[in-house]
Amino acid sequence: MSAPAEHAGVGVTAPLGFEAAGVAAGLKASGGPDVALVVNRGPLDAAAAVFTSNRAKANPVIWSQEAIRDGRATAIVLNSGGANCFTGAFGFQTTHQTAELAAELLGTSAGDVLVASTGLIGAGDEAFRSRVLDGVRAAVPALAPTREAGEAASLAIMTTDTVPKRAEFVSPEGWTIGAMAKGAGMLAPALATMLVVITTDAALDPPQLDEHLRAATRQSFDRLDSDGCMSTNDHVTLMASGASGVVPHRAAFQEALDAVTRDLAQQLMRDAEGASHDITIEVVGAANEDDAVEVARAVARNNLFKAAAFGNDPNWGRVLAAIGTTRAAFDPYDVDVAINGVRVCHAGGPDRPREEVDMRPRAMHLRIGLNAGRATATVWTNDLTHDYVHENSAYSS
Amino acid sequence: MSAPAEHAGVGVTAPLGFEAAGVAAGLKASGGPDVALVVNRGPLDAAAAVFTSNRAKANPVIWSQEAIRDGRATAIVLNSGGANCFTGAFGFQTTHQTAELAAELLGTSAGDVLVASTGLIGAGDEAFRSRVLDGVRAAVPALAPTREAGEAASLAIMTTDTVPKRAEFVSPEGWTIGAMAKGAGMLAPALATMLVVITTDAALDPPQLDEHLRAATRQSFDRLDSDGCMSTNDHVTLMASGASGVVPHRAAFQEALDAVTRDLAQQLMRDAEGASHDITIEVVGAANEDDAVEVARAVARNNLFKAAAFGNDPNWGRVLAAIGTTRAAFDPYDVDVAINGVRVCHAGGPDRPREEVDMRPRAMHLRIGLNAGRATATVWTNDLTHDYVHENSAYSS
Repeated sequence: MSAPAEHAGVGVTAPLGFEAAGVAAGLKASGGPDVALVVNRGPLDAAAAVFTSNRAKANPVIWSQEAIRDGRATAIVLNSGGANCFTGAFGFQTTHQTAELAAELLGTSAGDVLVASTGLIGAGDEAFRSRVLDGVRAAVPALAPTREAGEAASLAIMTTDTVPKRAEFVSPEGWTIGAMAKGAGMLAPALATMLVVITTDAALDPPQLDEHLRAATRQSFDRLDSDGCMSTNDHVTLMASGASGVVPHRAAFQEALDAVTRDLAQQLMRDAEGASHDITIEVVGAANEDDAVEVARAVARNNLFKAAAFGNDPNWGRVLAAIGTTRAAFDPYDVDVAINGVRVCHAGGPDRPREEVDMRPRAMHLRIGLNAGRATATVWTNDLTHDYVHENSAYSS
Repeated sequence: MSAPAEHAGVGVTAPLGFEAAGVAAGLKASGGPDVALVVNRGPLDAAAAVFTSNRAKANPVIWSQEAIRDGRATAIVLNSGGANCFTGAFGFQTTHQTAELAAELLGTSAGDVLVASTGLIGAGDEAFRSRVLDGVRAAVPALAPTREAGEAASLAIMTTDTVPKRAEFVSPEGWTIGAMAKGAGMLAPALATMLVVITTDAALDPPQLDEHLRAATRQSFDRLDSDGCMSTNDHVTLMASGASGVVPHRAAFQEALDAVTRDLAQQLMRDAEGASHDITIEVVGAANEDDAVEVARAVARNNLFKAAAFGNDPNWGRVLAAIGTTRAAFDPYDVDVAINGVRVCHAGGPDRPREEVDMRPRAMHLRIGLNAGRATATVWTNDLTHDYVHENSAYSS
């Protein structure tokens, strides 16, 4: 298998049967592209999606959850420049009108059009609505199955992202996966939300897609925890056109989808706003996978650990203090901690001198051995920096 | 009832029957006082204590949990300059030797001596041990029942605290409560731990003390959440000498203890390292108190909300996004949010213009109306600032 391409991928138009567009509709103050459209030309219109588990959901999430219920979608409209969250009935009507307009112009039904939005919560007024609708009108004639169109779509969903995120995978079996994502961390920056569109020309039905997507997100986007803050707008969609005519080997497809989603998750981590370290937290020796994830996540969300990482401080005491807040099976005096390959804590006490740890590289690897079993899990996070505080305190003022 | 005095209290020597000392033993690089001793001269030796719920507990916590089991304590030794946490068998022996030495010099048994430590996790070597023991040797002859001695003890437990924290309450019934605390936030600063010693000359037995202490901490220290990071060393002790000869009216004693602990909790909040806003999060209209606390705590731990507060940004969208991560009973479209008295969100949508909110004062009041019931709760926190990041990234390097 070829490794997923980084940053340079064609994106959502890589598989057969998909067209995309990215246009500027005036939602972004910069005047940059801010409305994206991805259309599945078939022959299949199978789709699956996962959404934020935040109970305070944005209007496009509420809409799309209903629209995807039948496992069918022919298009998805995405906008940056406004999350359309907590905008009441008017905001929901905006989402509905967006789907209606796209459906009319594409000759499909509104129930087959998903909508995803990102930007400031609480912003979604009359001007927002008219710009989104203008964007749809401009995007439909711009649709194309080309590399350029896939790139344009990936640019239109960026908010504070510094680079667009795309990935693809070409299978020797004759099918392809393409994908784009936005988000500068999980919800690390002020107006970030993770939006992901994955396309494939493999022939898979909706239940199969749903199963593959949930398995893939479980080991990729769900393991990304930049700042512990859950978005109201997260949305990951997988659409299958079947245009390759190939029914994939299921294990091969899962492996490819896992690789593509992990690739995107790591692109998101590397672009987390304000971060100066990309931190991989690997927990080994857990009694079970849930324990491993809980421990890794507790460390990923510990501000003291994250601030220490920013200061190039291999502070393993804070790691143990964070582990101590979990319900995972472990004994503090069995725990080992290694930072960038140096075991600084063994059996809950000091081991190698902290001076041996080189914290200067951007990539930081934290390995926690619980010695309570054989399960493992990895969570990706970032450090807590001055820039994080600055960007998240200043953006909406 | 008189209000508890702020900052100016005598502290632990205010009640009859208590002596204290604070001495410099070389644990602090500054050369300042770093070992405190509080002794109960009786006639009663009743005591109760609550400890961190972190499963990774420091050696003095492990020791004191056992020592307090019988509801008796005649003395507590406290040190700053080292947490004695994750220091293995050697560290536990240090704590044991500390209690043994104090007991020998005071003519009591080691099992009646509590120990509390604060400082860097993982630091607790031979030099640490000899300095703590030297501190005990110096503190015993310095013991006195005076205001000066109470003040000295409160200075000796400071780490990054900028001011000592003391409180007292004099009852018209003839009994007194005195107290001292350290901690610059819950675990907000790098080496903070909350240590609290409360003394009283009221005549109460151990089960009564335990009941009063748990009720008081539940509405004070447990509601303080500066940065969501739980210390390995938190320790709150209440000791009763009975020297007033007065058996207090239980409700009056509880009310006084509640006031003293709330006073200390707010002193801790106001001294949180790096903070520029002291934030009171009041949740009303919850289905039950647990829901109210869960909602308030979720907001208190949300880095995006806390960074917005730092930026004087009345960002109610982040408040709703944080509420959405809880299991509390609520409908996002029933929620009201007021910041500093201005209702910026009504029924889950925009209400008064954000420009009406004056965020410049250090005190910030966030009021969340869930409209799901009649229960309320208040949690205190701080904003997330550049200074927080700086102080927690730099201290141990």
